[in-house]
Amino acid sequence: MIRAGIVGGTGYTGVELLRLLTQHPEVDLVAITSRSEAGTPVADMFPNLRGHVDLAFSEPDFSQLKKCDVVFFATPNGTAMTLVPQLLEAGVRVIDLAADFRLRDPKSWTQWYGMAHACPDVLAEAVYGLPELNREAIRGARLVANPGCYPTAVQLGFLPLVEQGLVELDVLVADCKSGVSGAGRKASVGFMLGECSENMNAYAVAGHRHLPEILQGLEQAAGKPVGLTFVPHLAPMIRGIHATLYARLGDSVPDLQDLYARRYANEPFVDLLPTGSHPQTRSVRGANTCRIALHRPQDGNTVVVLSVIDNLVKGASGQAVQNMNILFDLEETSGLQHVAVVP
Amino acid sequence: MIRAGIVGGTGYTGVELLRLLTQHPEVDLVAITSRSEAGTPVADMFPNLRGHVDLAFSEPDFSQLKKCDVVFFATPNGTAMTLVPQLLEAGVRVIDLAADFRLRDPKSWTQWYGMAHACPDVLAEAVYGLPELNREAIRGARLVANPGCYPTAVQLGFLPLVEQGLVELDVLVADCKSGVSGAGRKASVGFMLGECSENMNAYAVAGHRHLPEILQGLEQAAGKPVGLTFVPHLAPMIRGIHATLYARLGDSVPDLQDLYARRYANEPFVDLLPTGSHPQTRSVRGANTCRIALHRPQDGNTVVVLSVIDNLVKGASGQAVQNMNILFDLEETSGLQHVAVVP
Amino acid sequence: MIRAGIVGGTGYTGVELLRLLTQHPEVDLVAITSRSEAGTPVADMFPNLRGHVDLAFSEPDFSQLKKCDVVFFATPNGTAMTLVPQLLEAGVRVIDLAADFRLRDPKSWTQWYGMAHACPDVLAEAVYGLPELNREAIRGARLVANPGCYPTAVQLGFLPLVEQGLVELDVLVADCKSGVSGAGRKASVGFMLGECSENMNAYAVAGHRHLPEILQGLEQAAGKPVGLTFVPHLAPMIRGIHATLYARLGDSVPDLQDLYARRYANEPFVDLLPTGSHPQTRSVRGANTCRIALHRPQDGNTVVVLSVIDNLVKGASGQAVQNMNILFDLEETSGLQHVAVVP
Amino acid sequence: MIRAGIVGGTGYTGVELLRLLTQHPEVDLVAITSRSEAGTPVADMFPNLRGHVDLAFSEPDFSQLKKCDVVFFATPNGTAMTLVPQLLEAGVRVIDLAADFRLRDPKSWTQWYGMAHACPDVLAEAVYGLPELNREAIRGARLVANPGCYPTAVQLGFLPLVEQGLVELDVLVADCKSGVSGAGRKASVGFMLGECSENMNAYAVAGHRHLPEILQGLEQAAGKPVGLTFVPHLAPMIRGIHATLYARLGDSVPDLQDLYARRYANEPFVDLLPTGSHPQTRSVRGANTCRIALHRPQDGNTVVVLSVIDNLVKGASGQAVQNMNILFDLEETSGLQHVAVVP
Repeated sequence: MIRAGIVGGTGYTGVELLRLLTQHPEVDLVAITSRSEAGTPVADMFPNLRGHVDLAFSEPDFSQLKKCDVVFFATPNGTAMTLVPQLLEAGVRVIDLAADFRLRDPKSWTQWYGMAHACPDVLAEAVYGLPELNREAIRGARLVANPGCYPTAVQLGFLPLVEQGLVELDVLVADCKSGVSGAGRKASVGFMLGECSENMNAYAVAGHRHLPEILQGLEQAAGKPVGLTFVPHLAPMIRGIHATLYARLGDSVPDLQDLYARRYANEPFVDLLPTGSHPQTRSVRGANTCRIALHRPQDGNTVVVLSVIDNLVKGASGQAVQNMNILFDLEETSGLQHVAVVP
Repeated sequence: MIRAGIVGGTGYTGVELLRLLTQHPEVDLVAITSRSEAGTPVADMFPNLRGHVDLAFSEPDFSQLKKCDVVFFATPNGTAMTLVPQLLEAGVRVIDLAADFRLRDPKSWTQWYGMAHACPDVLAEAVYGLPELNREAIRGARLVANPGCYPTAVQLGFLPLVEQGLVELDVLVADCKSGVSGAGRKASVGFMLGECSENMNAYAVAGHRHLPEILQGLEQAAGKPVGLTFVPHLAPMIRGIHATLYARLGDSVPDLQDLYARRYANEPFVDLLPTGSHPQTRSVRGANTCRIALHRPQDGNTVVVLSVIDNLVKGASGQAVQNMNILFDLEETSGLQHVAVVP
Repeated sequence: MIRAGIVGGTGYTGVELLRLLTQHPEVDLVAITSRSEAGTPVADMFPNLRGHVDLAFSEPDFSQLKKCDVVFFATPNGTAMTLVPQLLEAGVRVIDLAADFRLRDPKSWTQWYGMAHACPDVLAEAVYGLPELNREAIRGARLVANPGCYPTAVQLGFLPLVEQGLVELDVLVADCKSGVSGAGRKASVGFMLGECSENMNAYAVAGHRHLPEILQGLEQAAGKPVGLTFVPHLAPMIRGIHATLYARLGDSVPDLQDLYARRYANEPFVDLLPTGSHPQTRSVRGANTCRIALHRPQDGNTVVVLSVIDNLVKGASGQAVQNMNILFDLEETSGLQHVAVVP
Repeated sequence: MIRAGIVGGTGYTGVELLRLLTQHPEVDLVAITSRSEAGTPVADMFPNLRGHVDLAFSEPDFSQLKKCDVVFFATPNGTAMTLVPQLLEAGVRVIDLAADFRLRDPKSWTQWYGMAHACPDVLAEAVYGLPELNREAIRGARLVANPGCYPTAVQLGFLPLVEQGLVELDVLVADCKSGVSGAGRKASVGFMLGECSENMNAYAVAGHRHLPEILQGLEQAAGKPVGLTFVPHLAPMIRGIHATLYARLGDSVPDLQDLYARRYANEPFVDLLPTGSHPQTRSVRGANTCRIALHRPQDGNTVVVLSVIDNLVKGASGQAVQNMNILFDLEETSGLQHVAVVP
């Protein structure tokens, strides 16, 4: 059994990690920390876990965490980077669900997150944990930077096109719609039901922190610079991301359905739907799957890729468990075969 | 492995049965029938099942169904009673999720469901499948009448009080709120999002079909007649029932929390919350649990019981699987240990 | 034109007052104060008011407020009572949408609101602003205590029965469901869409602040003590209250439909539906109407009253405007003839 | 007073027309027809109209309709074209909320709507009723083709850019999100709350009927061919359209905010927000306003226009009333000054 700890377990990615890990056949959850809730039984805060999780939140305690085989950080941005170095030194593997280790360039981190990076040297060895892009590197990693939710949906949707150089790389568009749980569980007027139910709006059109992360991944795949217009929207639902991707095809266009089918043939968590399908976000609710469908309206030069995930599963905690499975040479689907809850 | 078949799998209880059975370690799903969708792969209609269910819907075919160990009916009311006798004769166990075998009195059936009962003799041997009330009878049954959603929440909430004769039996009140999935998946203007979102209303106050079912169960528990005012409401959500129960206490009142704790001490799917709690329907979303909390406002003579279930799980398909587990002497919780999906 | 001011206009009752007053033909809105938002144009905070409200929030300023004919308080509980006395002295009429002047007994105020009352002498002259109960007293009042949302729905539903002494007064039950806007616009985890969408729960079963207010009104109507079990629930919608009321009828029962029809014959904002109807909260969304329907299930001794309002209109700001109309001898329906927005 | 009739008033555009017309100071509603509901009082079907509309639905009756000054068609596509010619002949003005007269080319109509056009000659005189594009032509029209919901939001968003030739006309993208009321009130599984709440998906990516309508309008404005990728999405809300528009700027780019400000300076129902704003669909809920905001992310060559409307008001019935006001030389804003209902 793998001994797992969670730092900062009071948010949505935390409770989702708990849901997944308590049902994982090879994991023993040994600690979950929260400074603000230390002493509170986890199941008091999240009654859905009653009967499944007996732990109480504890003060972050290095002596206890270092006994873990793996520690997940489900903390606000900027926390993990202050604690990770000593855990690595103690031989603990780390999977960070926050953004601390996602951007390879510390200057870019500072620009987008507004603070200096606490451990640029460690940053250099972090592996960006999108298995469909970096599986082999993840296998040997000590530190995995778990991708953001939008970046997961967008990269999986664009990768085959970008890798093969089939589209104009400077005019990509990603129009994304997210449920509100993507914003976390911190009290905020804008995310109250009275404000965001029966409503939609775009936000951060000028620049969202997931933009440099997406560009970094696509540029790795393309081997050259990429230009992307990324517009996130808040949708009046709890879970789910729907990424609608637009690209201009070049002159020579192969069978795109076939291209995607081959690219993802061995991916257990990418499901390519038949051409012309319209994936629903609910079809992945609670599941670690990304469903993708391809369109070429009026047989024109624009390809439209529809890519849906559950932002808390494949977009966060499920992908973190997938990364753990890879790190520890478990079956990659272990503990992740939940069927999406529909309706 | 238990060979299971489903008759009528295109509704919400059907797809929920599929979700649960495909993840059940001891079940082999061998047939799922639908006259209207025969030939359609199940996963085409319910893409959340892609990769989990390879079956296609088939015409109802007795020769195939009789090879099953158990057949679940997820059909509209009035269908199962025409097919069950021959299945029983062929040695197949049957769990009916519709109402056909819930009311012991065929006259009551006719009164509330508007049709004569097709097999009153078989009706006589049906066991009402509320394990917390009838577990031993279920164990030896050939035919289980799976309870309705409201009746499950209301009976579990009232049972300890009624069994002990602690409340005035003629003035019980059950004010219930249900998500819309309880009404099924049949197209109907009243259940369109444009009609029932951002809205609440009571319905069927004059008399709902679940009333005689609840009364039958409570009268069995009380050993005497019971009077109940039952008012169901439609709430703007997909899943969940919240039953708010009111009863007048008699003169001698024991420690109610202790009473419920003892009554449900060995029940794997009834979770008594600390006194004064307010259970949330989401705390059981996707799970086979009924959570209950007790209140006695201003220490007066009125006891208020709050009882929540997921109408599609403990209120339908989950309870059906629980009954199957009992019928076949499996661990009662087998395949039913899903953690509720929160948020 | 009536010169109106609003103190504390950044919450939901504030913005709703603005919506109503800007469309009122006889009102000139001259000031809206907010300490935290002073200087911010109202339409910047509430873009729905762009083109309708040119004012900016201002610091509360007595010299300006005293020039008003009427001042509405849309402040948190406990604020109005510190400012009202001087406004009254300056000849300004006051309508308080908070609870400061609702309970006649300052001890009860202290018990339920946890603070001493700042002006018990002024409290004595406040008139409880439920027009259907107190219209004549409101007419001559200087200070109107605008009722709470639940108390409006519950009192209007029970009044005819209680006034006529037709029901057992000690065992009334009010099971109420409210949209989340009733809790105001203050950031709070529990009211985030991620927490309260797809969910229902009861709250404050042990005792809600609206209980003494309801009891006070019903006891005024009955002329004797009343016992009520009041259980509020949070429903996953923005607006709307559905009150489901239960009472035990005495021996002699007149035609209840006729009783209600006569009681409310001249009430412009109480709409009695035909017997057996099920009013929908959406049928009053944005409108100042209370719709009521009566049921007597199975012709038994329990009467069930269904009463729906929009908590922000008849349950708050609309009723405040209705009170203003009465105070200033305007047509009572002036500025309040909005048709509910459906769907 | 203008005598108005409505043909086919049982759908969402019908009930919304009723809401608006009953509050319009210069309209007398004289008939509302529905074959299926003839004899039913309108307020029985839509209780929000109780006390506001006394009419019952009547059989469509030419002798009655010809007495109207204006008749609105709120019928399914293909109905109006069979009745309009005789009404025009009788001197009645017609505003068709369906698609029958939107496409100037009858071949295009046949291609997209799958039926021959019943009166191509009348089609030739129909005026496309987007006042911001065609106000003068509307003024003298006998027959107005009221625009579709998506086309209204998309055209208003693109018009200034397209008219000035500032963007590459062949690679426009319109990613649109709509509430479910856009699909009408006909029972359909896909629009039930249990199916489309907590969900998002694109639909009709291969080609939506509003595409040729949008192209026709943009090409009129541009004076040359336009290429557009239009992807509509279903959002889990009742009302509201959010159009997110992407275009590639040419070499010479003026101050776009200024361009839009001047273009819409005299438009009472187009509200340009400050640069960088993110309009919310709820800010126009129930109101006849289109709110627009402009973005140029990272000061690049892509302009992003955000355009929101209420699909049932500016996207349907409100715009129809606006067209009626223009037809009859009323104040264009008459009866249309509703403040959006927020929250």
